[in-house]
Amino acid sequence: MYIDQNKIMNFSNNCFIKLGMPEEEANIITEVMLEADLRGIHSHGFLRLPIYVERIQKGLIKNKAEITEENNSTSSLVVNGNYSAGQVAGKYAMEKSIEIAEENGVGLVAVKNSNHFGITAFYSLLAAQKDKIGIVISNVAPLMPAIGGKEKVIGNNPISIAAPSKEKPIVLDMALSNTALGKVIFHKGNNMKIPKEWGVDAEGVPTDEPEKILNGGLLSAVGGPKGFGLAVMAEILTGVLSGGDFSKMIPSMYDTERKQSISHFMLTIDIKKLIPLETYYSNIDQLISFIKHSSKAEGVEEIYMPGEIEFMKEENNRLKGIPMEHNIFNQLNELAVELNVEGL
Amino acid sequence: MYIDQNKIMNFSNNCFIKLGMPEEEANIITEVMLEADLRGIHSHGFLRLPIYVERIQKGLIKNKAEITEENNSTSSLVVNGNYSAGQVAGKYAMEKSIEIAEENGVGLVAVKNSNHFGITAFYSLLAAQKDKIGIVISNVAPLMPAIGGKEKVIGNNPISIAAPSKEKPIVLDMALSNTALGKVIFHKGNNMKIPKEWGVDAEGVPTDEPEKILNGGLLSAVGGPKGFGLAVMAEILTGVLSGGDFSKMIPSMYDTERKQSISHFMLTIDIKKLIPLETYYSNIDQLISFIKHSSKAEGVEEIYMPGEIEFMKEENNRLKGIPMEHNIFNQLNELAVELNVEGL
Repeated sequence: MYIDQNKIMNFSNNCFIKLGMPEEEANIITEVMLEADLRGIHSHGFLRLPIYVERIQKGLIKNKAEITEENNSTSSLVVNGNYSAGQVAGKYAMEKSIEIAEENGVGLVAVKNSNHFGITAFYSLLAAQKDKIGIVISNVAPLMPAIGGKEKVIGNNPISIAAPSKEKPIVLDMALSNTALGKVIFHKGNNMKIPKEWGVDAEGVPTDEPEKILNGGLLSAVGGPKGFGLAVMAEILTGVLSGGDFSKMIPSMYDTERKQSISHFMLTIDIKKLIPLETYYSNIDQLISFIKHSSKAEGVEEIYMPGEIEFMKEENNRLKGIPMEHNIFNQLNELAVELNVEGL
Repeated sequence: MYIDQNKIMNFSNNCFIKLGMPEEEANIITEVMLEADLRGIHSHGFLRLPIYVERIQKGLIKNKAEITEENNSTSSLVVNGNYSAGQVAGKYAMEKSIEIAEENGVGLVAVKNSNHFGITAFYSLLAAQKDKIGIVISNVAPLMPAIGGKEKVIGNNPISIAAPSKEKPIVLDMALSNTALGKVIFHKGNNMKIPKEWGVDAEGVPTDEPEKILNGGLLSAVGGPKGFGLAVMAEILTGVLSGGDFSKMIPSMYDTERKQSISHFMLTIDIKKLIPLETYYSNIDQLISFIKHSSKAEGVEEIYMPGEIEFMKEENNRLKGIPMEHNIFNQLNELAVELNVEGL
């Protein structure tokens, strides 16, 4: 089914406002979830609304942001999210990183004590929309074992890099395991089996039941040591560098008894400080042309740039409405009853 | 066989000096190749000496560096390598990046018109040795097709991130294909077959003959779209951002009729500008402990941090000498005769 975009936005905003959140902050969280669903990343869309609400209700995420700045140098800044919503702290920090880059060429903001901030590309795209390159990394609760290990010690840390082009930006948005936790949750919510390559149960045995992966199981890293290595460096650039939590210090987002302290790394590069913008845009055009017009393998009709398919989905979904599984639709309407706001 | 470290260093330096290169520059190139062989990355070790020599002889790499600085902002700088040796331009640029970071928290240096600069970890480690985090990326001649393509359009671009710890730094040093081109060259030089997953011949058919991959073949990306996406972003952060060459503009290093214009991205983060160094070092210790002491899978005796095995090899090889295949030993002695320097 497809839900009208304004309807779901109003519903989402009303849920947060009901919990005492200022409208402006509610809008940011809604905007990030909307962007995820529009881009077809349903694992990070309105599917997450009930858990955000529950965490706010339990005081694990603040219903009013209290963001403070610490330790700034010319081109770097540490932001303390003080357990505000990750989307609110994340947007604040990325905008700071863009400002610093405008001034000095490069801007690095390390965020600590934040929360789950939704799709990473939301933040890197803020830079790309301003003729800049954005590099954004977050840590999350540990989900992957080390190479040779069977205990979850490292997060399936997402990395996004966005670079502007004359048309749509080129956007990489990836995590390092074979799948995203959100996809497992999505399959569980829809009573669907999952491919056995996605993860193993608590005993280390591959399973096609999403439930078993969520309860103590784990996901394996892309590319073996390379994926694990990237995940470790992501953990250092986020939790360690910001002075926040990392690895086993971070409980699951679905453990509703404990606060999470999530860290983000937000780097912006102001392109025009390095080369003239027109040179950059003509070079990017040339690179896109090299790639998109390269010889295709048999049976392939089009070669896509990183992020291109997501922009196509976004355009399509803006017209058709937000695609939603029945099961999620029902969960959101149950939430409406609980919070006494108008349902979908 | 094992070659004495001083002997191979003298030999390598003498080759470059014979070509009119200043001793200081010869030393840098030798140092980077030595580091590769010590760390067990033989694909980037003295195996590359003959091709560097040939490119210098043909004027494709300058025998005397002419490095100039362009477009600097507070925290960023463009360095023009003017076709100097990649190692010389690379070390110069990384040291600049470290200086800028010391001043401003973050330092970004984009290098254009450089050459093949050896192992990427050599440069990121320069930052780690100074209590900083180094992120280094290079582009190289295209070796991988796009997802759905069969034409080589994107380089097997190496990425290295190094972070200091109280003991050895944690170092990621990876490229994005299933193997490194140097490993293919290594196998070819030793008349060894290669695994069929490493690449395909010019017709797109998987092959176990290294020769066929070198002559028009290609390597496939790690993790499919993720590896390809990372390689594209690496190309943007190097060739596009520096105003240098990228993708199909770059000929192979083994095409000895054409200059290469290689670009590097060198970012340094001064940790102490974000958090106190003692906090950082105690957090890194904690992270290492979480990972190394996590439960091991059956049959596994030790879990290693990224880069740890390479440091063990380095220690070992410093005592035993540089491991070298007979075939490479013979090639280097032929080079000695050609250049009229003392052989190995």
